[in-house]
Amino acid sequence: MKRVVFVTGGARSGKSSFALNLALRFQSRVFLATAQAFDLEMEERIQKHRDERGTGFTTVEEPVNLAGALREIPAGTEVVLVDCLTVWTGNLMHRFGDESKEMIEKETAALLSVLESPPCTIVLVSNEVGMGIVPENAMARKFRDLAGRVNQKVAAAATEAYLLCSGLPIQLK
Amino acid sequence: MKRVVFVTGGARSGKSSFALNLALRFQSRVFLATAQAFDLEMEERIQKHRDERGTGFTTVEEPVNLAGALREIPAGTEVVLVDCLTVWTGNLMHRFGDESKEMIEKETAALLSVLESPPCTIVLVSNEVGMGIVPENAMARKFRDLAGRVNQKVAAAATEAYLLCSGLPIQLK
Amino acid sequence: MKRVVFVTGGARSGKSSFALNLALRFQSRVFLATAQAFDLEMEERIQKHRDERGTGFTTVEEPVNLAGALREIPAGTEVVLVDCLTVWTGNLMHRFGDESKEMIEKETAALLSVLESPPCTIVLVSNEVGMGIVPENAMARKFRDLAGRVNQKVAAAATEAYLLCSGLPIQLK
Repeated sequence: MKRVVFVTGGARSGKSSFALNLALRFQSRVFLATAQAFDLEMEERIQKHRDERGTGFTTVEEPVNLAGALREIPAGTEVVLVDCLTVWTGNLMHRFGDESKEMIEKETAALLSVLESPPCTIVLVSNEVGMGIVPENAMARKFRDLAGRVNQKVAAAATEAYLLCSGLPIQLK
Repeated sequence: MKRVVFVTGGARSGKSSFALNLALRFQSRVFLATAQAFDLEMEERIQKHRDERGTGFTTVEEPVNLAGALREIPAGTEVVLVDCLTVWTGNLMHRFGDESKEMIEKETAALLSVLESPPCTIVLVSNEVGMGIVPENAMARKFRDLAGRVNQKVAAAATEAYLLCSGLPIQLK
Repeated sequence: MKRVVFVTGGARSGKSSFALNLALRFQSRVFLATAQAFDLEMEERIQKHRDERGTGFTTVEEPVNLAGALREIPAGTEVVLVDCLTVWTGNLMHRFGDESKEMIEKETAALLSVLESPPCTIVLVSNEVGMGIVPENAMARKFRDLAGRVNQKVAAAATEAYLLCSGLPIQLK
């Protein structure tokens, strides 16, 4: 069966490691990275994640067109690990400015149509960003709204969903 | 049986929709709104929620005296949806300033006495605001303390409690 | 059996009360406090916690050398309640500055070696700090990374783990 696994959690909750361990059970693996390094801190984080997952993944970098990248996954791939939806949401917000809400809805709809008949098992990592105090910054409020809405839609489409906390999974569905 | 259902979650976690779906199983419905629109962003949020729940609810607006409003629910009402306790806590904090801690304790005690022998099924929506970094702002720290304390008390009094995450419920009790 | 119980949750989630109730089932009890009062707000919090737990605990204060303090627990002690790991992480970060990442790893390794063969039941309280928006402050980002990493390691070593939400426990393991 082709599974669609949604994995969410806070910062340093172990969500990427959990998703990685899921993906490692498969032979032919693609890592679909949504992050782009804009500064040294990001570059170090990306490199750290790359080191952790080691070899055995074909890495594809796609900050915006997630649905398109998933449709072009080479035949024979058994699992795609998408890391992560929250950075992707941020990329779309950054790129489309005032139209970002509509564009994120459109891109999410395209993603959902791929997830409906996935080419292989897909593991999608996301972030919990909405359990703190309401941010004073209006952009941050908008971002957590948009990210939360993406999470709801993708989790609804998933065959399994997990919330990670202190490295331990809570099965949501 | 008259249920008291506590529903919490982060921003855009699906808590209001989950609570709404619970309430829609009943015929005669009251929506008890605690929010007051102070600016355009709030007005849009309130209107969006109103549109989502559609017709079929009698809307009561009560920012402060929640226990009083619940006691005056018309006979024959089958469910009251209270949305939300965190905004209510903020309203009390705003109104009572330095006495807010004592006043919130007093108002919460009044609420709990209604929940002990509820006039009908009551669904109460709240927010998780305490899982981020400690806020630098002293008022924000006070607010999350007060909101968390209200959550604990109401959850303890509830017959069921749920934490929503990415639109999916975790049953707490 | 000597249990190692990890208890985490957001601010005012009821984690300390839950841990306290666990500890109160034992006769000979030590409270290992990691907090130091730097200001009035902290002093009040510490005093409040002290009042809540009442008598019946021997209090040990150790902001940094947690492993050492656990090794020196008097023979005959049945339970140690450590409150909390997040404050401890902050203390280490404050003390060791640029070397804090390495020092926290070292101190955590020492703690884990005690937890592997605990002298008595140990209950460790921690905090969820990573489920809000990414902090703008670089130190806050570093802190939530370090705190999250400590949580993962201690939770992995625990025989039981709980996430508290609105005063109610979700069993993680």
